[in-house]
Amino acid sequence: MTTALALTQGDPAGIGPEITLRAWLAREEHGLAPFFVIADPGFLARIAARLGLAVPLADVTPETAAEAFGRALPVVPLPGGLAVAAEPGRPDPASAAATLASIDEAVRLVQAGRAPALVTNPIAKHVLYEAGFRHPGHTEYLAALAAPPGATGPTPVMLLWSETLAVVPVTIHVPLRRVPDLLTTDLVVETARIVDHDMRTRFGLARPRLVLAGLNPHAGEAGTMGTEDRDVLAPAVASLQAEGIAITGPHPADTLFHARARATYDVALAPTHDQALIPIKTLAFDEGVNVTLGLPFLRTSPDHGTAFDIAGKGLAKPDSLVAALRLAGRLTRSPEIQDRKGIAA
Amino acid sequence: MTTALALTQGDPAGIGPEITLRAWLAREEHGLAPFFVIADPGFLARIAARLGLAVPLADVTPETAAEAFGRALPVVPLPGGLAVAAEPGRPDPASAAATLASIDEAVRLVQAGRAPALVTNPIAKHVLYEAGFRHPGHTEYLAALAAPPGATGPTPVMLLWSETLAVVPVTIHVPLRRVPDLLTTDLVVETARIVDHDMRTRFGLARPRLVLAGLNPHAGEAGTMGTEDRDVLAPAVASLQAEGIAITGPHPADTLFHARARATYDVALAPTHDQALIPIKTLAFDEGVNVTLGLPFLRTSPDHGTAFDIAGKGLAKPDSLVAALRLAGRLTRSPEIQDRKGIAA
Repeated sequence: MTTALALTQGDPAGIGPEITLRAWLAREEHGLAPFFVIADPGFLARIAARLGLAVPLADVTPETAAEAFGRALPVVPLPGGLAVAAEPGRPDPASAAATLASIDEAVRLVQAGRAPALVTNPIAKHVLYEAGFRHPGHTEYLAALAAPPGATGPTPVMLLWSETLAVVPVTIHVPLRRVPDLLTTDLVVETARIVDHDMRTRFGLARPRLVLAGLNPHAGEAGTMGTEDRDVLAPAVASLQAEGIAITGPHPADTLFHARARATYDVALAPTHDQALIPIKTLAFDEGVNVTLGLPFLRTSPDHGTAFDIAGKGLAKPDSLVAALRLAGRLTRSPEIQDRKGIAA
Repeated sequence: MTTALALTQGDPAGIGPEITLRAWLAREEHGLAPFFVIADPGFLARIAARLGLAVPLADVTPETAAEAFGRALPVVPLPGGLAVAAEPGRPDPASAAATLASIDEAVRLVQAGRAPALVTNPIAKHVLYEAGFRHPGHTEYLAALAAPPGATGPTPVMLLWSETLAVVPVTIHVPLRRVPDLLTTDLVVETARIVDHDMRTRFGLARPRLVLAGLNPHAGEAGTMGTEDRDVLAPAVASLQAEGIAITGPHPADTLFHARARATYDVALAPTHDQALIPIKTLAFDEGVNVTLGLPFLRTSPDHGTAFDIAGKGLAKPDSLVAALRLAGRLTRSPEIQDRKGIAA
């Protein structure tokens, strides 16, 4: 029996419902694996009608979703039949319970083996905060849900993936001023270990080739333009190499992302948010997929936000969600894939 | 009478001599404007023979260079007939006098109106330092030479230009840790003024459109991820706009460099070296040109170094020097050009 991917609804006032409907419409064009969305079917039907999208909905369980996928968008109702009354473009803390219930249920299903992977639509942290949410973000919430009761969650690592380039920012949403102190040898080692492990187990790479970008211009030029590359990053690389992980660096970040350089590695780790995100958003703006590594299950998501400003207007492009669904489908359908070209093909 | 561009020899042990010979060979393919190199003709002849390059040399003055350009590489001998005895790949402080004499003579010629612009081959600071050189770098040396006797030199600004993207790093070769404190409102204002001025006067843009990237992830998200974007960069943009300069920002750096975003501006300024250099080296690795703004003359140069490791082996690609010569030729030949498309065409 084919099992279907679990897709969360995301913030219902954002573009999540809209791009979900459009992704289903594009299922054949993009060869998408079956998926179901955990949402209020009545709300989705209203959004479809409003946008003039001919999307029949099927009320399913995870087990019956794949069979329905060809003729209708499979919807697993929210736990307890929770209803959603959101207005596109108007974020409302009253929707927070449904947003979180969809995530909770998705994690429960994937942990129970009733879905092979999780794909998430965007949420807006500030809306959830107003409703009492206390986690730093979407990914940290998933990590907490993934932990056994009473235990600390696993360390999640953000991978931005596209057919052209895959990058991991070692620090993410922190002020640039704090990066030099946050960037420890231990953090780099722990991050690279998770990347290496998940590239083997989830992406099927027999020997993932990693590179590490330097923090300073020209990777510090032997300590003459900043000492962190020599004193913090180089020891991390040496330690990882001693463990048998194929990683080199620190390399000057500016010359690491052109075509000839990209051909030499599978994943680039970079110290700052912008060093990692500038090249992938420059090369693959609409096709980037956010993959969370380090969790006990595979999770992908589009690399954009809720886009409240265009929600409900028929302007939202489903490209990144489609890419997230495609990647999740490929990785869970084809565990035997042995190289990245196979994944990208 | 056509006047020829002045090209310096650069470090003679680097790839400068080699790419100069190859650029001349490619003069018709790329429609290069006439140029002359200030160098020891005997040394250049030996390099040409060693590499098997059929490049006749013509001993010229700046005034006779253009006429000779079609049939031979015009060479203006070093002042006093200084000879060079360098070995490719073996940097030697004994060559420093010739390296600097070529630069000095080029500035003298362009300041005297005997050449319309200056193109420089790469030098190696550490080699010059061993010979007593005391300037921070190539560009600062040019600024010092450009100053009237006894006066402080102008503030040079580094522009990286390609047909695809033009960027200005507001801070350059400094440790990343120091950037948040070096990045003052005054520095951003002064840099943007020079960019705006030179885009008008040298690039012929009637109203240059500038954008400023943020320092922190997502340009700080209203101060929640670092305060510099709100407190340092935003006031600089407001002040520049009040002067009539067309600049917007600070914008999140990661979404500023994809094709749709690039279509909205002429030059992007970015707080850090890597924020500016990653996108241009990702998109236009071999075609980037370094343009020094803020000097009393136009100066372009390839955006790579001396590459001692491949010098003399016939491996060096002249692409970036060719691009530097092309841009200098276009900008000095066509002062009437009114938009960037015209320059790129």
